[in-house]
Amino acid sequence: MTQQTLKRIELKPIGIIRSPYSDAQNMPIQGRFKDEVEACAELLPEYEDGLRDLDGFTHAILLYHFHACDREELLARPLLEQEKHGIFAIRSPYRPNHIGLSIVKIKKIEGHKLYFTEVDVFDQTPLIDIKPYVKQFDHREHTKSGWIDKHFEGGQIPEGTILKA
Amino acid sequence: MTQQTLKRIELKPIGIIRSPYSDAQNMPIQGRFKDEVEACAELLPEYEDGLRDLDGFTHAILLYHFHACDREELLARPLLEQEKHGIFAIRSPYRPNHIGLSIVKIKKIEGHKLYFTEVDVFDQTPLIDIKPYVKQFDHREHTKSGWIDKHFEGGQIPEGTILKA
Repeated sequence: MTQQTLKRIELKPIGIIRSPYSDAQNMPIQGRFKDEVEACAELLPEYEDGLRDLDGFTHAILLYHFHACDREELLARPLLEQEKHGIFAIRSPYRPNHIGLSIVKIKKIEGHKLYFTEVDVFDQTPLIDIKPYVKQFDHREHTKSGWIDKHFEGGQIPEGTILKA
Repeated sequence: MTQQTLKRIELKPIGIIRSPYSDAQNMPIQGRFKDEVEACAELLPEYEDGLRDLDGFTHAILLYHFHACDREELLARPLLEQEKHGIFAIRSPYRPNHIGLSIVKIKKIEGHKLYFTEVDVFDQTPLIDIKPYVKQFDHREHTKSGWIDKHFEGGQIPEGTILKA
Protein backbone atom coordinates (compact mmCIF):
# COMPACT_ATOMS: atom_id res chain seq x y z
CA MET A 1 0.00 0.00 0.00
CA THR A 2 1.33 3.41 -0.89
CA GLN A 3 1.90 6.36 1.39
CA GLN A 4 -0.78 8.21 -0.56
CA THR A 5 -3.33 5.53 0.23
CA LEU A 6 -2.56 5.46 3.91
CA LYS A 7 -2.41 9.17 4.48
CA ARG A 8 -4.48 10.46 7.34
CA ILE A 9 -7.91 11.92 6.67
CA GLU A 10 -9.18 14.97 8.53
CA LEU A 11 -12.91 15.28 9.14
CA LYS A 12 -14.81 18.31 10.35
CA PRO A 13 -18.05 17.66 12.22
CA ILE A 14 -21.08 19.01 10.36
CA GLY A 15 -23.03 19.43 13.59
CA ILE A 16 -23.94 17.60 16.78
CA ILE A 17 -26.56 15.15 17.92
CA ARG A 18 -28.73 16.31 20.82
CA SER A 19 -30.13 13.25 22.53
CA PRO A 20 -31.80 12.53 25.88
CA TYR A 21 -29.10 9.93 26.62
CA SER A 22 -26.34 11.59 28.62
CA ASP A 23 -25.17 8.11 29.62
CA ALA A 24 -25.96 4.49 28.71
CA GLN A 25 -28.81 4.12 31.25
CA ASN A 26 -31.96 3.03 29.36
CA MET A 27 -30.35 3.53 25.97
CA PRO A 28 -31.05 0.77 23.44
CA ILE A 29 -28.09 -1.04 21.88
CA GLN A 30 -29.68 -0.19 18.52
CA GLY A 31 -32.33 2.44 17.90
CA ARG A 32 -35.02 0.08 16.66
CA PHE A 33 -35.28 -1.61 20.07
CA LYS A 34 -36.69 1.54 21.66
CA ASP A 35 -38.36 3.59 19.02
CA GLU A 36 -40.32 6.30 20.85
CA VAL A 37 -37.48 8.49 22.15
CA GLU A 38 -36.73 11.61 20.10
CA ALA A 39 -33.43 13.30 19.35
CA CYS A 40 -32.16 16.02 17.04
CA ALA A 41 -29.28 16.27 14.61
CA GLU A 42 -28.40 19.95 14.70
CA LEU A 43 -26.29 20.90 11.73
CA LEU A 44 -24.08 23.94 11.55
CA PRO A 45 -26.29 26.55 9.87
CA GLU A 46 -24.12 26.62 6.74
CA TYR A 47 -25.13 23.02 5.94
CA GLU A 48 -28.89 23.65 5.99
CA ASP A 49 -29.28 23.47 2.19
CA GLY A 50 -27.86 19.94 2.26
CA LEU A 51 -31.03 18.70 3.99
CA ARG A 52 -33.27 19.69 1.07
CA ASP A 53 -35.62 16.82 0.04
CA LEU A 54 -34.49 14.53 2.85
CA ASP A 55 -38.00 14.92 4.28
CA GLY A 56 -39.28 12.65 1.49
CA PHE A 57 -37.46 9.74 3.12
CA THR A 58 -38.71 7.86 6.17
CA HIS A 59 -35.22 6.95 7.42
CA ALA A 60 -31.68 8.30 7.36
CA ILE A 61 -28.25 6.85 8.07
CA LEU A 62 -26.22 8.94 10.51
CA LEU A 63 -22.45 8.66 10.71
CA TYR A 64 -20.87 10.13 13.81
CA HIS A 65 -17.81 10.09 16.02
CA PHE A 66 -17.77 7.99 19.18
CA HIS A 67 -16.21 10.98 20.92
CA ALA A 68 -16.28 9.51 24.42
CA CYS A 69 -14.33 6.46 23.29
CA ASP A 70 -10.71 6.54 24.34
CA ARG A 71 -9.34 3.16 23.24
CA GLU A 72 -9.23 0.66 20.40
CA GLU A 73 -9.67 -3.10 20.73
CA LEU A 74 -9.35 -5.62 17.91
CA LEU A 75 -11.19 -8.30 19.86
CA ALA A 76 -14.05 -7.13 22.05
CA ARG A 77 -17.23 -8.21 23.79
CA PRO A 78 -20.46 -7.04 22.18
CA LEU A 79 -23.32 -5.93 24.43
CA LEU A 80 -25.40 -9.05 23.68
CA GLU A 81 -22.97 -11.68 25.00
CA GLN A 82 -19.75 -12.37 26.88
CA GLU A 83 -17.92 -13.97 23.96
CA LYS A 84 -15.27 -11.84 22.28
CA HIS A 85 -15.35 -11.29 18.53
CA GLY A 86 -13.30 -9.38 16.00
CA ILE A 87 -14.11 -5.67 16.17
CA PHE A 88 -15.23 -5.74 12.50
CA ALA A 89 -17.78 -8.47 13.36
CA ILE A 90 -19.45 -6.39 16.11
CA ARG A 91 -20.75 -2.84 16.36
CA SER A 92 -18.72 -1.79 19.41
CA PRO A 93 -17.42 1.80 19.59
CA TYR A 94 -13.93 0.51 20.44
CA ARG A 95 -13.12 0.16 16.75
CA PRO A 96 -10.33 1.81 14.79
CA ASN A 97 -11.41 5.33 13.82
CA HIS A 98 -14.37 5.30 16.27
CA ILE A 99 -17.01 5.92 13.61
CA GLY A 100 -20.60 5.03 14.53
CA LEU A 101 -23.55 4.34 12.23
CA SER A 102 -27.23 4.53 13.14
CA ILE A 103 -30.32 4.13 11.02
CA VAL A 104 -32.90 6.55 12.39
CA LYS A 105 -36.51 7.40 11.66
CA ILE A 106 -37.06 10.92 10.38
CA LYS A 107 -39.80 12.87 12.20
CA LYS A 108 -39.37 16.32 10.73
CA ILE A 109 -36.80 18.75 9.41
CA GLU A 110 -36.86 22.40 10.47
CA GLY A 111 -34.16 24.65 9.08
CA HIS A 112 -30.82 23.09 9.99
CA LYS A 113 -32.36 20.63 12.46
CA LEU A 114 -33.35 17.04 11.73
CA TYR A 115 -35.61 15.52 14.40
CA PHE A 116 -35.64 11.74 14.58
CA THR A 117 -36.53 8.65 16.62
CA GLU A 118 -34.84 5.22 16.90
CA VAL A 119 -32.03 6.83 18.88
CA ASP A 120 -28.93 4.99 20.15
CA VAL A 121 -26.51 7.89 20.37
CA PHE A 122 -25.17 9.89 23.31
CA ASP A 123 -25.95 13.56 23.70
CA GLN A 124 -23.32 15.90 22.18
CA THR A 125 -22.05 13.34 19.70
CA PRO A 126 -20.26 15.01 16.77
CA LEU A 127 -22.06 14.34 13.49
CA ILE A 128 -20.01 13.52 10.38
CA ASP A 129 -22.55 12.71 7.68
CA ILE A 130 -26.21 12.07 6.93
CA LYS A 131 -27.25 9.77 4.08
CA PRO A 132 -30.75 8.87 2.96
CA TYR A 133 -31.73 5.27 3.80
CA VAL A 134 -32.76 3.85 0.44
CA LYS A 135 -34.60 0.53 0.38
CA GLN A 136 -33.57 -0.05 -3.22
CA PHE A 137 -29.88 0.35 -2.31
CA ASP A 138 -29.63 -0.79 1.30
CA HIS A 139 -31.99 -3.71 1.80
CA ARG A 140 -30.63 -7.23 1.49
CA GLU A 141 -32.67 -10.46 1.48
CA HIS A 142 -31.45 -13.84 2.70
CA THR A 143 -28.89 -12.57 5.16
CA LYS A 144 -27.13 -14.36 7.99
CA SER A 145 -25.91 -12.42 10.98
CA GLY A 146 -23.22 -14.73 12.40
CA TRP A 147 -23.02 -14.81 16.21
CA ILE A 148 -26.06 -12.49 16.48
CA ASP A 149 -28.79 -14.70 14.94
CA LYS A 150 -28.96 -17.09 17.92
CA HIS A 151 -29.99 -14.22 20.20
CA PHE A 152 -33.06 -13.50 18.04
CA GLU A 153 -34.24 -17.06 17.39
CA GLY A 154 -37.98 -17.37 16.93
CA GLY A 155 -38.28 -13.62 16.37
CA GLN A 156 -37.72 -12.85 20.06
CA ILE A 157 -36.07 -9.61 21.18
CA PRO A 158 -33.43 -10.74 23.69
CA GLU A 159 -32.74 -9.26 27.09
CA GLY A 160 -29.90 -6.80 26.95
CA THR A 161 -31.16 -4.68 24.07
CA ILE A 162 -31.87 -1.87 26.55
CA LEU A 163 -28.85 -0.88 28.62
CA LYS A 164 -28.96 -0.81 32.41
CA ALA A 165 -26.04 1.51 33.04
CA MET B 1 -22.02 24.19 19.83
CA THR B 2 -18.79 24.09 21.74
CA GLN B 3 -15.25 24.07 20.39
CA GLN B 4 -14.84 20.59 21.84
CA THR B 5 -17.76 19.32 19.80
CA LEU B 6 -16.56 20.81 16.56
CA LYS B 7 -12.96 19.83 16.86
CA ARG B 8 -11.50 18.09 13.84
CA ILE B 9 -11.25 14.31 13.79
CA GLU B 10 -8.26 12.52 12.32
CA LEU B 11 -8.79 9.12 10.74
CA LYS B 12 -6.17 6.62 9.69
CA PRO B 13 -7.10 4.23 6.89
CA ILE B 14 -7.21 0.60 8.04
CA GLY B 15 -6.42 -0.67 4.54
CA ILE B 16 -7.43 -0.23 0.93
CA ILE B 17 -10.06 -1.58 -1.40
CA ARG B 18 -8.75 -3.37 -4.49
CA SER B 19 -11.45 -3.27 -7.11
CA PRO B 20 -11.59 -3.88 -10.88
CA TYR B 21 -13.05 -0.38 -11.33
CA SER B 22 -10.22 2.03 -12.07
CA ASP B 23 -12.83 4.48 -13.40
CA ALA B 24 -16.63 4.75 -13.52
CA GLN B 25 -17.00 2.78 -16.79
CA ASN B 26 -19.38 -0.15 -16.17
CA MET B 27 -19.46 0.46 -12.41
CA PRO B 28 -22.92 0.22 -10.85
CA ILE B 29 -24.25 3.21 -8.90
CA GLN B 30 -24.84 0.76 -6.03
CA GLY B 31 -23.32 -2.67 -5.66
CA ARG B 32 -26.56 -4.63 -5.75
CA PHE B 33 -27.21 -3.59 -9.37
CA LYS B 34 -24.22 -5.62 -10.63
CA ASP B 35 -23.55 -8.37 -8.19
CA GLU B 36 -21.05 -10.70 -9.92
CA VAL B 37 -17.90 -8.54 -9.85
CA GLU B 38 -15.42 -9.32 -7.07
CA ALA B 39 -13.19 -6.99 -5.09
CA CYS B 40 -11.02 -7.22 -2.00
CA ALA B 41 -10.71 -5.14 1.15
CA GLU B 42 -7.06 -5.55 2.08
CA LEU B 43 -6.46 -4.52 5.67
CA LEU B 44 -3.12 -3.56 7.09
CA PRO B 45 -1.81 -6.81 8.58
CA GLU B 46 -2.06 -5.47 12.15
CA TYR B 47 -5.87 -5.37 11.86
CA GLU B 48 -6.27 -9.04 10.86
CA ASP B 49 -7.65 -10.12 14.27
CA GLY B 50 -10.48 -7.62 13.87
CA LEU B 51 -11.97 -9.77 11.09
CA ARG B 52 -12.50 -12.78 13.38
CA ASP B 53 -16.07 -14.18 13.08
CA LEU B 54 -17.08 -11.79 10.31
CA ASP B 55 -17.24 -14.86 8.04
CA GLY B 56 -20.47 -15.86 9.83
CA PHE B 57 -22.20 -12.88 8.22
CA THR B 58 -23.39 -12.77 4.62
CA HIS B 59 -22.93 -9.00 4.24
CA ALA B 60 -20.77 -6.20 5.58
CA ILE B 61 -20.96 -2.43 5.61
CA LEU B 62 -17.81 -0.75 4.33
CA LEU B 63 -17.00 2.85 5.17
CA TYR B 64 -14.33 4.46 3.03
CA HIS B 65 -12.92 7.75 1.85
CA PHE B 66 -13.92 9.14 -1.54
CA HIS B 67 -10.27 9.94 -2.10
CA ALA B 68 -10.65 11.10 -5.71
CA CYS B 69 -13.25 13.67 -4.71
CA ASP B 70 -11.93 17.20 -4.65
CA ARG B 71 -14.96 19.35 -3.93
CA GLU B 72 -18.05 19.70 -1.77
CA GLU B 73 -21.53 20.60 -2.98
CA LEU B 74 -24.56 21.17 -0.77
CA LEU B 75 -26.98 20.76 -3.68
CA ALA B 76 -26.02 18.20 -6.30
CA ARG B 77 -27.40 15.98 -9.07
CA PRO B 78 -27.61 12.31 -8.25
CA LEU B 79 -26.74 9.75 -10.93
CA LEU B 80 -30.37 8.74 -11.47
CA GLU B 81 -31.76 12.11 -12.55
CA GLN B 82 -31.00 15.69 -13.52
CA GLU B 83 -32.82 17.31 -10.61
CA LYS B 84 -30.62 18.70 -7.84
CA HIS B 85 -31.21 17.65 -4.24
CA GLY B 86 -29.62 18.37 -0.90
CA ILE B 87 -26.38 16.42 -0.52
CA PHE B 88 -27.79 14.67 2.57
CA ALA B 89 -30.74 13.40 0.49
CA ILE B 90 -28.49 11.76 -2.14
CA ARG B 91 -25.51 9.41 -2.00
CA SER B 92 -23.12 11.57 -4.06
CA PRO B 93 -19.43 11.62 -3.10
CA TYR B 94 -19.43 15.43 -3.17
CA ARG B 95 -20.58 15.52 0.45
CA PRO B 96 -18.89 17.13 3.41
CA ASN B 97 -16.22 14.76 4.73
CA HIS B 98 -16.34 12.56 1.60
CA ILE B 99 -17.24 9.37 3.45
CA GLY B 100 -18.76 6.56 1.38
CA LEU B 101 -20.83 3.60 2.54
CA SER B 102 -21.39 0.34 0.68
CA ILE B 103 -23.18 -2.82 1.69
CA VAL B 104 -21.26 -5.71 0.16
CA LYS B 105 -21.66 -9.46 0.01
CA ILE B 106 -18.93 -11.40 1.77
CA LYS B 107 -17.35 -14.19 -0.31
CA LYS B 108 -14.46 -15.25 1.91
CA ILE B 109 -11.92 -13.98 4.38
CA GLU B 110 -8.28 -15.02 4.12
CA GLY B 111 -5.90 -13.58 6.66
CA HIS B 112 -6.17 -9.80 6.46
CA LYS B 113 -8.14 -9.87 3.19
CA LEU B 114 -11.91 -9.74 2.84
CA TYR B 115 -13.16 -10.76 -0.62
CA PHE B 116 -16.59 -9.49 -1.58
CA THR B 117 -19.07 -8.87 -4.37
CA GLU B 118 -21.70 -6.11 -4.87
CA VAL B 119 -18.90 -3.65 -5.59
CA ASP B 120 -19.40 0.07 -6.27
CA VAL B 121 -16.03 1.39 -5.18
CA PHE B 122 -12.99 2.56 -7.13
CA ASP B 123 -9.71 0.70 -6.95
CA GLN B 124 -7.29 2.02 -4.30
CA THR B 125 -10.01 3.54 -2.14
CA PRO B 126 -8.83 4.02 1.45
CA LEU B 127 -10.88 1.90 3.87
CA ILE B 128 -11.97 3.43 7.17
CA ASP B 129 -14.16 0.80 8.81
CA ILE B 130 -15.95 -2.53 8.34
CA LYS B 131 -19.16 -3.31 10.24
CA PRO B 132 -21.25 -6.45 10.09
CA TYR B 133 -24.57 -6.00 8.30
CA VAL B 134 -27.12 -7.16 10.84
CA LYS B 135 -30.68 -7.76 9.68
CA GLN B 136 -31.96 -7.36 13.24
CA PHE B 137 -30.35 -3.91 13.51
CA ASP B 138 -30.30 -2.56 9.97
CA HIS B 139 -33.46 -3.67 8.22
CA ARG B 140 -36.45 -1.31 8.15
CA GLU B 141 -39.95 -2.12 6.91
CA HIS B 142 -42.40 0.39 5.43
CA THR B 143 -39.85 2.85 4.12
CA LYS B 144 -40.20 5.65 1.61
CA SER B 145 -37.23 6.75 -0.44
CA GLY B 146 -38.24 10.27 -1.47
CA TRP B 147 -37.17 11.28 -4.99
CA ILE B 148 -35.78 7.76 -5.64
CA ASP B 149 -38.99 5.68 -5.44
CA LYS B 150 -40.37 6.92 -8.76
CA HIS B 151 -37.36 5.48 -10.60
CA PHE B 152 -38.14 1.98 -9.32
CA GLU B 153 -41.92 1.95 -9.78
CA GLY B 154 -43.33 -1.50 -10.47
CA GLY B 155 -40.12 -3.12 -9.27
CA GLN B 156 -38.21 -2.10 -12.39
CA ILE B 157 -34.46 -1.42 -12.30
CA PRO B 158 -34.08 1.90 -14.13
CA GLU B 159 -31.54 2.73 -16.80
CA GLY B 160 -28.58 4.52 -15.36
CA THR B 161 -27.78 2.06 -12.56
CA ILE B 162 -24.67 0.99 -14.53
CA LEU B 163 -22.36 3.88 -15.37
CA LYS B 164 -21.23 4.55 -18.92
CA ALA B 165 -18.14 6.60 -18.19
